[in-house]
Amino acid sequence: MRELLVIGIGAGDPDQVTVQAIKAMNRAEVFFVIGKGAEKQDLVDLRTGILDEHMRGDYRIVDIVDPPRDRTPSDYEGVVDDWHDRRAAIFEEQFGAVEGVGAILVWGDPSLYDSTLRIVERVLARGIETFEYSVIPGVTSVQSLAAQHRIVLNRIGEPVHITTGRRLREGLPDGVRDAVVMLDADCSFAQLSGDWQIWWGAYLGTPDEVLISGDLPDVSQEIVRVRAELRERKGWIMDTYLVRSR
Amino acid sequence: MRELLVIGIGAGDPDQVTVQAIKAMNRAEVFFVIGKGAEKQDLVDLRTGILDEHMRGDYRIVDIVDPPRDRTPSDYEGVVDDWHDRRAAIFEEQFGAVEGVGAILVWGDPSLYDSTLRIVERVLARGIETFEYSVIPGVTSVQSLAAQHRIVLNRIGEPVHITTGRRLREGLPDGVRDAVVMLDADCSFAQLSGDWQIWWGAYLGTPDEVLISGDLPDVSQEIVRVRAELRERKGWIMDTYLVRSR
Repeated sequence: MRELLVIGIGAGDPDQVTVQAIKAMNRAEVFFVIGKGAEKQDLVDLRTGILDEHMRGDYRIVDIVDPPRDRTPSDYEGVVDDWHDRRAAIFEEQFGAVEGVGAILVWGDPSLYDSTLRIVERVLARGIETFEYSVIPGVTSVQSLAAQHRIVLNRIGEPVHITTGRRLREGLPDGVRDAVVMLDADCSFAQLSGDWQIWWGAYLGTPDEVLISGDLPDVSQEIVRVRAELRERKGWIMDTYLVRSR
Repeated sequence: MRELLVIGIGAGDPDQVTVQAIKAMNRAEVFFVIGKGAEKQDLVDLRTGILDEHMRGDYRIVDIVDPPRDRTPSDYEGVVDDWHDRRAAIFEEQFGAVEGVGAILVWGDPSLYDSTLRIVERVLARGIETFEYSVIPGVTSVQSLAAQHRIVLNRIGEPVHITTGRRLREGLPDGVRDAVVMLDADCSFAQLSGDWQIWWGAYLGTPDEVLISGDLPDVSQEIVRVRAELRERKGWIMDTYLVRSR
């Protein structure tokens, strides 16, 4: 493979793709699709729709099957590290079978809670496959969340903290009063005490989008209930939220 | 004015505009351009280039001149608040003179260190002009920075803190080891002690883009020098960076 393009494709709306991403997609001959099987059919369909809408020439899709992963490890970082190594070996093999330009489409943006760039660096560090690569930024679900709620993430002159549900449960750093939470399967917002507001969104940018916002004590149980119902109905859920302390 | 569209247009590259933003732009008859006069001609030209490239029909540009502002206030929040009020009154007058759909183009994304949404809410809160409005998210300079350096902002499972130069100088919250810094006119990174790395970028997404990265002690003075030279040469600079503690 001569070149790899890692392309952010936005949070789910095919129109959220940038012109730069469309031009990059059209330079690629092969798209590596990661984790098929584990990935929900809705997401596969969404991505296929994006390719259908924006690709003008022929292309191939190569499925890369993820190695199995312990989802509830005690040694979180060590297990993730080992899994990325096994993943890199599989990618190396697939990259080596391609000539010309390959691409990986990433939901949102490759810079936020996404492992693609780490895998690419691991493949390169192994020294067997060499190729140029570049990253095309995309709109993240964080921007989508803010846009749909029509909110600014930071207060004037203040910081915003982007974190995970796990970290939120462990406690925010002192002084953090505005936090965007991603990767939260456990409704960790429900454990916050104090005077918080929340802006929550699920399936952002898709026809299934759901938004709930308000004072946390007023809407917390509603979000927990709606989230469980949606997850049950569709079989999966992607959501994110901003919490803000008064 | 019937409807207002607040549209994120990316960090500077005309190709970084989304399809959604292009469709929204083409629904607008009037574009409100804020702060002309204070704004650098390069940025005006960049935005004009984006409109030229993506607009298929006629449109008008209405300049909104910002009220004067104290740039070094002692009472930072109070002064900014008063300034936003005076700004809202000016916007209200201009909005009222338009029929149909108006739009405001925002560099990056309206959700991050941008005052447009606050002004729109203030105009609506005054109760004189009423209109529908929606926000179209854009790629931020934060995503551009990460893409050009090909980095992930967060470490595995860890948070990332987005803050200002002023807040960085006051000290990061305990436990924050990865921080994106915006609005830093004072090279505040140079005051960090300890074992930090930095990924810095200026004029991201434009032909003038400059990137520097490395261990902070090795590159800090280089960034300070290059930043001063660039600012002197062009008359303005827009930059952002990630700092990461080992």
